[in-house]
Amino acid sequence: MCTALSFNQFFGRNLDYEFSYGERVAVTPRNYDFHFRHLDKHESHYALIGMAHVFEEYPLYYDAMNEKGLGMAGLNFVGNAKFYEAKEGKNNVAAFEFISWILSQCASVKEARVVLENTNVCATPFNEHFPVAELHYMISDENESIVVECMEDGMHVYDNPTHVLTNNPPLPMQLFRLNDYMYLSNKQPENNFGLDLTAYSRGFGAMGLPGDLSSGSRFVRVAYTRANATSDKNDLSQYFHIIGSVEQQKGLCEVEPGKYEYTIYTSCCDLRNGIYYYTTYNNRQISGVNMFNEDLDGETLISYPTIEEEMVHMQN
Amino acid sequence: MCTALSFNQFFGRNLDYEFSYGERVAVTPRNYDFHFRHLDKHESHYALIGMAHVFEEYPLYYDAMNEKGLGMAGLNFVGNAKFYEAKEGKNNVAAFEFISWILSQCASVKEARVVLENTNVCATPFNEHFPVAELHYMISDENESIVVECMEDGMHVYDNPTHVLTNNPPLPMQLFRLNDYMYLSNKQPENNFGLDLTAYSRGFGAMGLPGDLSSGSRFVRVAYTRANATSDKNDLSQYFHIIGSVEQQKGLCEVEPGKYEYTIYTSCCDLRNGIYYYTTYNNRQISGVNMFNEDLDGETLISYPTIEEEMVHMQN
Amino acid sequence: MCTALSFNQFFGRNLDYEFSYGERVAVTPRNYDFHFRHLDKHESHYALIGMAHVFEEYPLYYDAMNEKGLGMAGLNFVGNAKFYEAKEGKNNVAAFEFISWILSQCASVKEARVVLENTNVCATPFNEHFPVAELHYMISDENESIVVECMEDGMHVYDNPTHVLTNNPPLPMQLFRLNDYMYLSNKQPENNFGLDLTAYSRGFGAMGLPGDLSSGSRFVRVAYTRANATSDKNDLSQYFHIIGSVEQQKGLCEVEPGKYEYTIYTSCCDLRNGIYYYTTYNNRQISGVNMFNEDLDGETLISYPTIEEEMVHMQN
Amino acid sequence: MCTALSFNQFFGRNLDYEFSYGERVAVTPRNYDFHFRHLDKHESHYALIGMAHVFEEYPLYYDAMNEKGLGMAGLNFVGNAKFYEAKEGKNNVAAFEFISWILSQCASVKEARVVLENTNVCATPFNEHFPVAELHYMISDENESIVVECMEDGMHVYDNPTHVLTNNPPLPMQLFRLNDYMYLSNKQPENNFGLDLTAYSRGFGAMGLPGDLSSGSRFVRVAYTRANATSDKNDLSQYFHIIGSVEQQKGLCEVEPGKYEYTIYTSCCDLRNGIYYYTTYNNRQISGVNMFNEDLDGETLISYPTIEEEMVHMQN
Repeated sequence: MCTALSFNQFFGRNLDYEFSYGERVAVTPRNYDFHFRHLDKHESHYALIGMAHVFEEYPLYYDAMNEKGLGMAGLNFVGNAKFYEAKEGKNNVAAFEFISWILSQCASVKEARVVLENTNVCATPFNEHFPVAELHYMISDENESIVVECMEDGMHVYDNPTHVLTNNPPLPMQLFRLNDYMYLSNKQPENNFGLDLTAYSRGFGAMGLPGDLSSGSRFVRVAYTRANATSDKNDLSQYFHIIGSVEQQKGLCEVEPGKYEYTIYTSCCDLRNGIYYYTTYNNRQISGVNMFNEDLDGETLISYPTIEEEMVHMQN
Repeated sequence: MCTALSFNQFFGRNLDYEFSYGERVAVTPRNYDFHFRHLDKHESHYALIGMAHVFEEYPLYYDAMNEKGLGMAGLNFVGNAKFYEAKEGKNNVAAFEFISWILSQCASVKEARVVLENTNVCATPFNEHFPVAELHYMISDENESIVVECMEDGMHVYDNPTHVLTNNPPLPMQLFRLNDYMYLSNKQPENNFGLDLTAYSRGFGAMGLPGDLSSGSRFVRVAYTRANATSDKNDLSQYFHIIGSVEQQKGLCEVEPGKYEYTIYTSCCDLRNGIYYYTTYNNRQISGVNMFNEDLDGETLISYPTIEEEMVHMQN
Repeated sequence: MCTALSFNQFFGRNLDYEFSYGERVAVTPRNYDFHFRHLDKHESHYALIGMAHVFEEYPLYYDAMNEKGLGMAGLNFVGNAKFYEAKEGKNNVAAFEFISWILSQCASVKEARVVLENTNVCATPFNEHFPVAELHYMISDENESIVVECMEDGMHVYDNPTHVLTNNPPLPMQLFRLNDYMYLSNKQPENNFGLDLTAYSRGFGAMGLPGDLSSGSRFVRVAYTRANATSDKNDLSQYFHIIGSVEQQKGLCEVEPGKYEYTIYTSCCDLRNGIYYYTTYNNRQISGVNMFNEDLDGETLISYPTIEEEMVHMQN
Repeated sequence: MCTALSFNQFFGRNLDYEFSYGERVAVTPRNYDFHFRHLDKHESHYALIGMAHVFEEYPLYYDAMNEKGLGMAGLNFVGNAKFYEAKEGKNNVAAFEFISWILSQCASVKEARVVLENTNVCATPFNEHFPVAELHYMISDENESIVVECMEDGMHVYDNPTHVLTNNPPLPMQLFRLNDYMYLSNKQPENNFGLDLTAYSRGFGAMGLPGDLSSGSRFVRVAYTRANATSDKNDLSQYFHIIGSVEQQKGLCEVEPGKYEYTIYTSCCDLRNGIYYYTTYNNRQISGVNMFNEDLDGETLISYPTIEEEMVHMQN
């Protein structure tokens, strides 16, 4: 499945799956025409950068940010996601366009909230070969995060004080579950048991934190990790450590005999500087693409392949 | 605290602590004189490479391998480690010399077992400023791992089928504890509960795996992760993913107000090729030092500083 | 807090609290006038038996059944329960009358569903000294159980396939939480870990079952216990064993210094035979009151004190 | 498996198994001849009362106390128990005689320690049909408890500050395991998580307490329950509540298809008054046999059947 994280100026996600559809770091300049299915032409819009499956020069974004510092990611929400029929009087946006729709016009979460009010996310497929993915979304700027869940009973927009998202169940249940873990601490526990006991190692304060890869357990773990992580000039590194706490190692989640879900890539949008950082499963080094190094006034999609081989720095 | 891991040809550890003593990747060539405190001069010996605090050209190794492909690491074992007085008729080795003593003469775990039989690890400090560290040790070649624990009741040498080590309690108790987790699986569980239930996400098979940073929980988690990890041509990457499962993120283990234990570095000895790989907390990229690129017949210690700043690869 | 359980012909609850308001086993005969606050007089109704605080000959039932074999219990639902203003066109029933209202006229869960459709549970207090308790309700006959939760967003009537109820959170979240425990089994687990491990005792199949007294953990534990419990001619005994799995021992839940919540009584309605069984914290022996041994055509409440001292049977 | 508990003046156990060998409450008077296999006749001894399988007038005690207030119980210790060959110069006692041997001559745990120093527990079977049971033992008076474990490496006598015992692993590992649970509390937890969270029910302080029936989990649960239980004039009731926390409900531990281990009986020796209390799975009421109501100077075993049917007290 997947995990999204916002941590100060950094926003991104783990993409966990058993195979890659082939993705590239794609920069959409301001005058690229998205050809929204149900909407008129956007003359010009904010430039975007993010990870996308690029099909015939069209970017199907998994996660991205825009030049104003707003980020958005779509994560699996299988069995709960439900998109709608087009409705008159609404801005009808196909689910596959949703990230581009928001990021092309909103400079902040605050603006996104307003646009969402009149947005209807439609179950329009990209084409006959690409079924509509069942997703929910996290939208973050440097200051706040919200989650959008389109379900049977309508579209929900939730504040997300944890700044993390995984998959099922819906966010309100994930948030509620955290209550069970309120006692977790980065300090050694007191001995309340009523017998003479001792903490025989450091790190005793989080006994009970789940370590498995289910979406519920990953939510608790990454929320706890983020809530306790220090922040300093090395926040880019720290971001990767936080989201690394819920990385899926290859072999630990078998989806069919011999096929394993694992963290295909981890992305990290520097919302302040327009740089899209990422690592891949077989390359720990952080790679980066800076949107501002491209001609953002163009009309044509620019994209870079991901680096999939371990880039080792030999010191001798 | 710390975690050691052996995974096929790769051996190394996380060093977890709240500050660094200053460590370098140190190559000890064959004719370097270790000046063993209680022993005669070793005329010549196997060359070593590893992470060490280097004091006046002397390498105090935390973990290392030799040119034959044997690796050894010392990990905190506070409250349980007990070193001894020098004994006549034994090879008396100061605890700070123990890694060098074994690696300078043993080409395999099998040879190490023989040498250990007549070894007495002594509580001789390096100097008045460096007290004797309370450690236990994992020794691994490509095929097997053993653990050496010097305790009040004598030196124990244990087979270690898990190929991992953390800290307290002693290995037999850590191994026994794994029994409680035998049900963990990388497959989705069956529904045995007696009600109509569903696995609402992937990765449900390891419900109950602990996620905290205590030494007992890290042992279970890394042992489980290693036992299920796939192996292929990307084993170097995979090694870092496995040991990353028990990384200590800064902020999650407070040892005094505002001071946090974290994974200062992660090392990975390529036992087959003599390359010492490592990452540091603020540099995800794997750096490497190849012992065979040095003059291994020299007498002088060679060492390289660790890289502590994030080395990002910009693609544009 | 509390736990309710339906198991074949037996229905009842643990009442967990830090002190008793004084309760008696109260039989309401068919011609007793309930004086419903917002409703006309019920000329005659089903007879009831249950545990009640009796105030000036009025039974404030905590849990009860009627002569037709329908049972109902109210359990704490603090922070979530919300009762309503009286509404025209509805049967307005004060919360304190709700159990009597349902049991006086419904012979089955099926009939209760119909009555509930036109019922509006009101926040009318019994008197100025008895504030409205925040409760939710389980209603069971021998075949099915439902739960009624009156909340901010309206009254919910849920099927309850677990046949158990505790307290917060609302039932849908409690039911969802069970998914995390689908792997629990009354059989020994397979060893999936990838190492040579052994189940060193019996009862290994439910590793991970929570043992604490929070309402979420009690829900999982009693649902699991009920789902696996055998059933035979000793079902009365078995009922007490099942609900005993979530008993609150005195001392384990401190609500203020020196005050402890504990299981004040455990009740068990024999829905088939009209016998109200119960035990108290200090008397393990099951006591019983048979409604059919009373004159059920009367107009006056009949009640029996609970037995609070250990009734030991000496064999010599 | 089984659980033993000492709580102030009360001592006893749960006997958990899938079938009963047939047991009776047996009083051994002072002049009964035990015919110790390897020892001379004990002319006279303390009188005993306890639960035993009685074979041809010989009591094979599972648990018992003597007239001086010392209690002793044998619990399964399969795979770890090892009894010995008879040794010259030792008091050689067959394992099946061990409880009678200690209780017939020791008035306190202190005296038992002395007798144990020269005792050698032998693997002598009772007869060809009764193989030697693999057991370990708890011995308690009102003030202290010890555990005796005869293993491959010799007989161990451990202080037992928990006053509880279950089965595998050996006591030192069980005690060590408690360290992981030192944070458990009967008070509500503080919120340390770093987010705004709430304890939505009472009883939140013991999140993480295991609820399953394995011997390791039962040890933690009953030790925690005992350590927090209040004590007052109702300690007899409280004893049954504490040990009830690890009762095995029928159906939850399948040992072969359709066969379940469950708590066949729970015993409670009143060490101060010589009364042996017990309950059985199908009779919650406490039954009792008072040794001092028998002629304790006799030579003949006296025994009472256990009551196996629910003794309900009808109030009308």
